[in-house]
Amino acid sequence: MSERLVAVYELSGPADEAEKAARLIAFEETVEVPLDFPLPPAIRDGIVGRVLSVAPVKLGRFRAEIEFPAALAAGGLGTFLNLVFGNASIWPGVRLIDVLWPDALLASFPGPSFGVPGLRKMLRVENRPLLATALKPMGSSRAELAATAAAFARGGGDIAKDDQNIVDADFAAFKARVAAVAEAVFRENERAKRLCLYFPHLSGPQQELEARLKFALKLGLRGVLVCPAIVGLDEFRRLAAKHPAVFMAHPAFSGAFYADRSHGIEASLYLGTLMRAIGADITVFPNAGGRFAFTREECRSVAARARAPLGALAAAWPAPGGGMRLDDASDMARDFGVDSVWLVGGSLLMQPGGPEAGARAFRAAIRAAFPTA
Amino acid sequence: MSERLVAVYELSGPADEAEKAARLIAFEETVEVPLDFPLPPAIRDGIVGRVLSVAPVKLGRFRAEIEFPAALAAGGLGTFLNLVFGNASIWPGVRLIDVLWPDALLASFPGPSFGVPGLRKMLRVENRPLLATALKPMGSSRAELAATAAAFARGGGDIAKDDQNIVDADFAAFKARVAAVAEAVFRENERAKRLCLYFPHLSGPQQELEARLKFALKLGLRGVLVCPAIVGLDEFRRLAAKHPAVFMAHPAFSGAFYADRSHGIEASLYLGTLMRAIGADITVFPNAGGRFAFTREECRSVAARARAPLGALAAAWPAPGGGMRLDDASDMARDFGVDSVWLVGGSLLMQPGGPEAGARAFRAAIRAAFPTA
Repeated sequence: MSERLVAVYELSGPADEAEKAARLIAFEETVEVPLDFPLPPAIRDGIVGRVLSVAPVKLGRFRAEIEFPAALAAGGLGTFLNLVFGNASIWPGVRLIDVLWPDALLASFPGPSFGVPGLRKMLRVENRPLLATALKPMGSSRAELAATAAAFARGGGDIAKDDQNIVDADFAAFKARVAAVAEAVFRENERAKRLCLYFPHLSGPQQELEARLKFALKLGLRGVLVCPAIVGLDEFRRLAAKHPAVFMAHPAFSGAFYADRSHGIEASLYLGTLMRAIGADITVFPNAGGRFAFTREECRSVAARARAPLGALAAAWPAPGGGMRLDDASDMARDFGVDSVWLVGGSLLMQPGGPEAGARAFRAAIRAAFPTA
Repeated sequence: MSERLVAVYELSGPADEAEKAARLIAFEETVEVPLDFPLPPAIRDGIVGRVLSVAPVKLGRFRAEIEFPAALAAGGLGTFLNLVFGNASIWPGVRLIDVLWPDALLASFPGPSFGVPGLRKMLRVENRPLLATALKPMGSSRAELAATAAAFARGGGDIAKDDQNIVDADFAAFKARVAAVAEAVFRENERAKRLCLYFPHLSGPQQELEARLKFALKLGLRGVLVCPAIVGLDEFRRLAAKHPAVFMAHPAFSGAFYADRSHGIEASLYLGTLMRAIGADITVFPNAGGRFAFTREECRSVAARARAPLGALAAAWPAPGGGMRLDDASDMARDFGVDSVWLVGGSLLMQPGGPEAGARAFRAAIRAAFPTA
C-alpha cells in the first residue's frame, strides 16, 4: 500500500554526472525549466520531482530513485508514461528499471480480465503450462491456416494464435480469414469435447480495430492477439477494459524500448508489469536461446513481474516464444514453472507429422515435466 | 514514383554477421519460420523479404537494403510499422534508417492538413520562421498560464502551446484550463488584430481524446499538441485525418527509438518523415546545443525530411526546441531556414520583462536573421 510514486532509473556515471542527470530528470519531467528558473516555492516543493538517492550499481552505472507527486499521474496511463519517461526517453543512457506504484494509479489500470485463474477456468486446465502456437507462414491461404489450427487443436493444443505478421488488407479479408479459421477450430472442439482457443491478430487501421474485435467475439472467439506498441498502449488498455475477452500482447515494435540494455525501459518492467497493467492476460516475450538476445535471467524476470503481487491485479501468463524446441522443455519448465504459456511456432509446425504431431509431442513434453497435471 | 517498398537498415558487423542478420530480418518480418522451413515456392518467392545489398558504411556497421512486397503493408500504418520494424525492433544493433515508400502506401497517409503553406496562410505570415513557446511550469494556475499566453501573444508570438507536462486529471479540469487560456489569447488577438494560436496539450484517457479535441476546436482553437508515441501513432493519424486542425507532434516517450544511435529508428526518419506522414503539421524535436544529445547534423536531417518532397504530402514545419537562447538565433536561422518554428520555452519566459518582452526579443532576433520578412 502506498500513496507514493517513485520511479527508479539506471543512469550513466561518473557519480557527479549521474547525480546531475537525476536532478535534470526530476526537473524535465515536471516543470521543464532551466535549473535557475525562479520557481514559486509551492511549485518547487510540491511539483518538481525529488531525487531520493543516487548510488552505484555496476561499472559506470548508477541507480537513481526519483519521487514524483502521485497526483501528476492522475490522468491515467498516458499521463503516467509521460511523467516517468517522457522527455527522459530522449536522453542517452537513461533506463527506467522500476516503479513504486501509488495505489490510486494501480487501481485505475484494468489488469487482466482473465489472467492465470480466469484462463485456467475457461480452459479447465490445471497444474500444467498451456501450449500455444502461431499460425503461419504469412502468404498461406485461409484454408491452410485453418487446417494448421485444426491440426494443432486435434493434437491437444490450447491456444492457436495468428502470427503477428498475419495481417489483412481490409475488413472483408479479416472477416473471411478469421471466420474460416474459427470454424475449423470450433469443429475440432465440438468433435473432441475440449476447448482450443483461436486468437486472431487484431490489426489494421485504428478506426476499425474495435469493429474487428467485435466481429471476432461475435463469431464466438474468446480472445485476440494485439501488438500494444503498434496500436498504442492506452488503446490496448481501452479495448481490454471494455471487452470481456482474453488479450494476448505481442512485443512487435516494442523492442526499441529494451533491446539496448543501457537505455529505454527494463524488459521485465515493459513486458511484464506494463503489459499486465494495461490488461494483457498473456504477455509474449522472446525466450532465451531463441533468435533474440534475451538472457535466461531477463526472461525469468519478465515472468516474475507478470505474476508477482501487484495491487488487486490478476496475474498474467508469461508466454516465452521464439525458436523454442522440444529439447528445451526441461529448461522451460524450470525457468517458467506451471503458470506459463509455451509458445511454440516453427519447431512445432515442422515436427514430422505436422502440427498435430507437433502439438502431441509438446503436450507430452509438458506432461513429462509436470507429471501431476 | 515507385511500386516498391524497400527498407534500409544499419546492422552490426562483421560482414558475415550483418549478412546473416539481413537474411534473418527478411524472414522474421514476413514468414517468421526457421531458415530451413519447407516453404512453398510461391511464399518463398512472393512473400519473404529480399536482401538487395549489404555494404559497409562505417566502422563495424553495415547498410542493408531489404525489399518487401508492397502489398504486405496494404493494411496501413500499423501494418507497415510491423512489417519494417516489428520483431526486428527486438534485435540489438538493428537501426531502420530509411524507407523507399510505395506510392499506394504514401497515398494512404494523410500528411499535414495545413503544413507549411496552410499555416502560413492561416497566420498570414510570410518569409520568416514562426515563434512558438511552451506554457509552463506544471503547477501554475489556470490564470497564470493564461497570463503567460496573453503576454506572449502581446509580444508578437505566433503559437503558444501547452508544455507537454501540462496535463489534466479529468475532462472538467481540461475544459476549465483550456477555456481560460483560450479566452486570454482570443482577447489579445482581438485587441491587436493579429493571430496568435493556442494549442492545448491533448492528453488523458484514450476514450476521451477525441471529445477533448472537439471541445478545443469548438472553443475556436485551431490546433492541438499531441505526443504520438504516447497516444499511439495510428491514433494520431486517425485524429489528424478526421479533424481539420493543426497537429503539433511532441516527441515525449519516443526517444527510446532513436536516443541510442546504434539501434531503433533514425531520428530524422522517426521525427521528420513518420511524424509528417501521420499528419503532423509541426514536428517538435530536440535542438542541438540544448539539453539533449542531438547533433546539428541530426537536427538538420530531421528538418530536411520534414520538408523534402514526399508523394503529395505537404511539407511539415520542423520545430527545434529545448534550451534555445537568444544567442542561438543565427545558428537557428542557418540550420533551419525560413520554414521552421522556433520553439523557445524557458529562456523566453525568463527574459527580463517576462514573456511579452521575451517574445519581442525573439521576434527581433528573427527579424535580424530574416530582414526581408
